[in-house]
Amino acid sequence: MSSNSFGSLLRLTTFGESHGAALGAVIDGCPAGIRLSEKDFETELKRRRPGQSAVTTSRSEEDRPVILSGIFEGKTTGMPIAVIVENKAQRSQDYDKLKTVFRPGHADEVYDSKYGIRDYRGGGRSSGRETLARVIGGVVARKILPKNVTIIGHTVNVGGIEIETFDPTVIEKNPMRCADMEAAKEMEKYVLELKSKGDSIGGIISVLIQSPPKNLGDPVFGKLKSRLADAIMSIGAVTGFSYGAGFDVAYMRGSEYVKDAQNFGGILGGISTGDDIVLSVAVKSPSSVGKIAKEGRHDPCIVPRVIPVVEAMTALVLADCWLLQKAYARERSAISDQRSAV
Amino acid sequence: MSSNSFGSLLRLTTFGESHGAALGAVIDGCPAGIRLSEKDFETELKRRRPGQSAVTTSRSEEDRPVILSGIFEGKTTGMPIAVIVENKAQRSQDYDKLKTVFRPGHADEVYDSKYGIRDYRGGGRSSGRETLARVIGGVVARKILPKNVTIIGHTVNVGGIEIETFDPTVIEKNPMRCADMEAAKEMEKYVLELKSKGDSIGGIISVLIQSPPKNLGDPVFGKLKSRLADAIMSIGAVTGFSYGAGFDVAYMRGSEYVKDAQNFGGILGGISTGDDIVLSVAVKSPSSVGKIAKEGRHDPCIVPRVIPVVEAMTALVLADCWLLQKAYARERSAISDQRSAV
Amino acid sequence: MSSNSFGSLLRLTTFGESHGAALGAVIDGCPAGIRLSEKDFETELKRRRPGQSAVTTSRSEEDRPVILSGIFEGKTTGMPIAVIVENKAQRSQDYDKLKTVFRPGHADEVYDSKYGIRDYRGGGRSSGRETLARVIGGVVARKILPKNVTIIGHTVNVGGIEIETFDPTVIEKNPMRCADMEAAKEMEKYVLELKSKGDSIGGIISVLIQSPPKNLGDPVFGKLKSRLADAIMSIGAVTGFSYGAGFDVAYMRGSEYVKDAQNFGGILGGISTGDDIVLSVAVKSPSSVGKIAKEGRHDPCIVPRVIPVVEAMTALVLADCWLLQKAYARERSAISDQRSAV
Amino acid sequence: MSSNSFGSLLRLTTFGESHGAALGAVIDGCPAGIRLSEKDFETELKRRRPGQSAVTTSRSEEDRPVILSGIFEGKTTGMPIAVIVENKAQRSQDYDKLKTVFRPGHADEVYDSKYGIRDYRGGGRSSGRETLARVIGGVVARKILPKNVTIIGHTVNVGGIEIETFDPTVIEKNPMRCADMEAAKEMEKYVLELKSKGDSIGGIISVLIQSPPKNLGDPVFGKLKSRLADAIMSIGAVTGFSYGAGFDVAYMRGSEYVKDAQNFGGILGGISTGDDIVLSVAVKSPSSVGKIAKEGRHDPCIVPRVIPVVEAMTALVLADCWLLQKAYARERSAISDQRSAV
Repeated sequence: MSSNSFGSLLRLTTFGESHGAALGAVIDGCPAGIRLSEKDFETELKRRRPGQSAVTTSRSEEDRPVILSGIFEGKTTGMPIAVIVENKAQRSQDYDKLKTVFRPGHADEVYDSKYGIRDYRGGGRSSGRETLARVIGGVVARKILPKNVTIIGHTVNVGGIEIETFDPTVIEKNPMRCADMEAAKEMEKYVLELKSKGDSIGGIISVLIQSPPKNLGDPVFGKLKSRLADAIMSIGAVTGFSYGAGFDVAYMRGSEYVKDAQNFGGILGGISTGDDIVLSVAVKSPSSVGKIAKEGRHDPCIVPRVIPVVEAMTALVLADCWLLQKAYARERSAISDQRSAV
Repeated sequence: MSSNSFGSLLRLTTFGESHGAALGAVIDGCPAGIRLSEKDFETELKRRRPGQSAVTTSRSEEDRPVILSGIFEGKTTGMPIAVIVENKAQRSQDYDKLKTVFRPGHADEVYDSKYGIRDYRGGGRSSGRETLARVIGGVVARKILPKNVTIIGHTVNVGGIEIETFDPTVIEKNPMRCADMEAAKEMEKYVLELKSKGDSIGGIISVLIQSPPKNLGDPVFGKLKSRLADAIMSIGAVTGFSYGAGFDVAYMRGSEYVKDAQNFGGILGGISTGDDIVLSVAVKSPSSVGKIAKEGRHDPCIVPRVIPVVEAMTALVLADCWLLQKAYARERSAISDQRSAV
Repeated sequence: MSSNSFGSLLRLTTFGESHGAALGAVIDGCPAGIRLSEKDFETELKRRRPGQSAVTTSRSEEDRPVILSGIFEGKTTGMPIAVIVENKAQRSQDYDKLKTVFRPGHADEVYDSKYGIRDYRGGGRSSGRETLARVIGGVVARKILPKNVTIIGHTVNVGGIEIETFDPTVIEKNPMRCADMEAAKEMEKYVLELKSKGDSIGGIISVLIQSPPKNLGDPVFGKLKSRLADAIMSIGAVTGFSYGAGFDVAYMRGSEYVKDAQNFGGILGGISTGDDIVLSVAVKSPSSVGKIAKEGRHDPCIVPRVIPVVEAMTALVLADCWLLQKAYARERSAISDQRSAV
Repeated sequence: MSSNSFGSLLRLTTFGESHGAALGAVIDGCPAGIRLSEKDFETELKRRRPGQSAVTTSRSEEDRPVILSGIFEGKTTGMPIAVIVENKAQRSQDYDKLKTVFRPGHADEVYDSKYGIRDYRGGGRSSGRETLARVIGGVVARKILPKNVTIIGHTVNVGGIEIETFDPTVIEKNPMRCADMEAAKEMEKYVLELKSKGDSIGGIISVLIQSPPKNLGDPVFGKLKSRLADAIMSIGAVTGFSYGAGFDVAYMRGSEYVKDAQNFGGILGGISTGDDIVLSVAVKSPSSVGKIAKEGRHDPCIVPRVIPVVEAMTALVLADCWLLQKAYARERSAISDQRSAV
């Protein structure tokens, strides 16, 4: 079924396989008049790219976004924005052996069972490279949101090494995308150690949304928390999602829970309160381990690279809800309009 | 916006407030020819009903499902199935003081901010009573699924008291809906203790799906895991969702992860493998605490009552994906059809 | 599949069979704060009701709308509005012979083929009575639209008898809902003549939308004209739809076409221009003819009764597009645009 | 809002402006295992291309479809199929004068009003060139449908010149796509006459669907007739849609209507009966007339070029309904499955 589109008013459609001609994103429903260029995409795509450091894969992908439509004289026109990134000639012969091998923990076998055919080169559509199109969508989404909304993803736990301080200014200054420099160093050391053994590790991402618009989300099936869960759980490596107190609620008495608004995570009744929103996202270890991992160009820890993707999906949900909420805005004029209509 | 419908081929639309005339569910897209009666709903609604024991609220609601459409001579006709449950004359004067009070941790304030008006009686639409319509939808969904699929929700943690054994036969035999009788007793004792203090507690539900059909879920935005997350996170009190190894992946090396198929949780590449699916769901403590809780008829722990709702949402997702997958089934006849079309 | 919902932001879900317990409508996505009562529905339902005159069926249905949810203290709350109309004890034994008979021109045979089961009493879900729920939805839709928008449906052709003058004040004063009293009388005479012979006749409805908001409709698949076509062609007896010059374009040179803005029908590029919108709708003759028609209580011409349904579907489309357009309002300039349009 | 996608299980998303970098289509929800190549698209795109004869515009566009994704070793994989067609360097300076001119009968003014910005080169997104992506989608749709289903569009009326015979073998042998060679010649003569005067003309297309699958379409808002109306009315130049007896029903007594199954147009109760489906589509004259038409490279009659687009939209609807119906197929195995579930 058609399941490569996400969103209602603002909708991202993605396509492309890791070793096909190109990956692409079509962003439909973007308001007109927003300044947008290929440069905007480049910056963000770089954050997602592997080969940024030793903890991630050493493949050096050069991702050149090309805008095909929807922009005129540097601005969005309200028409669908199509962006593609061509896949450079990659060593697909590396993957020939995968033709007949189902890698444990990968989508190989289920794709084969479900579709009876699969593009086995580099995982095809199930490759992490698919997320590139999500990052493109996220760039547009952020442009739609009020400027003061910030979405900060950062690594809070890798292999049990947890952050103890939170300094957002250092996140992009270490390969772990960690807000605690000390923890970052420990994590990095641990990850490199695993890499040398052909092993890998998972982790937890925290997302902090500052100055979110209030009133986003719609009861009962369009709650902000369920939209965010849907969006973020659709990312390949993500195995868990929570907000506010998350799974700690099991240990929390009601009297404790209501005392600290942070436990609500900025969402009440499924609707944003205007307070900071805090999400937790579990990311599993890459399943390529052992001999394969040593030989191949695989990530021992993809948590840092998943962060821009989680941020992008978060931005898409917020921007969609923001547009939806505008349709129901009860500004003064609207209220009087409504009244006259009654 | 319209956000009271859930699902694609099989779609549940719900309506109703806790103290309005009635709550209701419209289930659209159910195949024709399935035997269905009001009795089918009664059994399941009883499981959701409060007043089943001391750990849940003592309100005794009598929920009488009435089928309005979609059934003819005891069978579904393929037409939308509407079921309503009238609200009995309830002491809504109890809630008069809530007219001007925003209860912390409740949806009161956000509803007021978003809509400028709210039905404050018993929480209105944000009341837990809304979930009754979900349970009705779940009953139909289970009828659509192959008979051997079983969905078992059970309490695994309340206030840090965790289960140590798993005996599914005892789940419905204790008020905690716990698969470990010893743990159940401890949990119950703890909850009653909190109740006497006007306090409350959260917990964790585990969902075990046995014999799920394989090939359910569609990359990249219709993955089974994101559909389930969306469905379950839309339940009022739920604050976290995970599957398989869940948040433990942070501590799990790749070599460990791939070794045990249970870590995959029955889902690979977002598609069901046919293996048992295991979900974890975090449920927060009720926010009605202190004097209010002591006076009112409130639940000190809603975990057991949320279980039938989680099961219902799970069933709705599975049945929807099951129908979707049938559209793409490559049975022998379909394959030959396809071939002739090529 | 789930196909009993219509609309995107404003969504109408309908259910019910002609001889089931009740028919119903759930209107989701209605803005909060709009005054709405059961009385609002009654007025409009009366217009749709049969037995209003000799040209329509003599069944006297008493349609009592009951609001089940979504209204608090006389106003919409933003929650789904459910309205049901119970079916009074009707002589369903009349229909027993239909159990095994497929009436030509009816849905009997296709329902049986598609679903393998059908509620044969009075056509079940395929009965014209289903449209009652659409009329309910239309009432809410009109309340959402700016007050000055008017939607006027009227009969322009029955059996070749066409209107020659247009006086909107007489439409509700004759059983044909015709804006030309002379033509109305002729039509009525002709229809009664056919009735006495057990025959029936079709006709054409014109819909005039005055003061429509501008900028409604979205290229390329959400054009106002395609949304209206979708909405109106979903009505049982409707066999054709056109706007502006309609099918006359076949005879119209470009130089003629562009000369008169009326040919555009108020829609250019699929978007409303703010000019009056004019639609044409073809309605077939009832298929119950001959002996059956003489014995039964059937309409010899349903054109007048279809008018409120066409108006309702039109209102639903306009209100949905109106909300959608609000989501993309371009602040100051947009507000002034809107204002001028209101 | 996002309105550049069409369909439910099978979904076409289109993008691109007439003078942008490229036009494109993403087809999502296509079953796996269908043989598909760029050549398949070329054949059909040629039919849509202008410059085929004197009656259409003399621009010679070279449309080279490039598949970017969804095909592996010559077959569909179940993943989204993206196809783009680059726009060759076109004389966009020709259109500079349109920057400040709103052409009557075009989308220029409404786009400006709605979006506050527009790509004025060649109509941008409102150009007929947009339909190229629909034709691409239609090619895939036809591959999904059973092989024996044929969709034949042909011109039946241009400027009052109507066909009198129906010979499908001559349709592609005359520039008018007319099934009556005599009428074709007359039409052509008339169109060339108008061209010399800088004028243009509209017409009517008839679509004949032979051997359609039965049971397509879903009451009450997903009827086959409303889906087809939605699809076809979304094409730029289309002003009217009907099926079966269409607008003639106004003149047709019930006794006549039910006598000839052709009047039903292959659709009863909104569901396909398996009989041939017949549609009528009104296409307006191009609005570029007078001096502009003489100077520019404009079509005096676009009816023949709209035919492949109407066929494509028809195929998309049929294929979508075909997949939907498969989800509810009551084959022997499904029935026994169902039974065990009851």
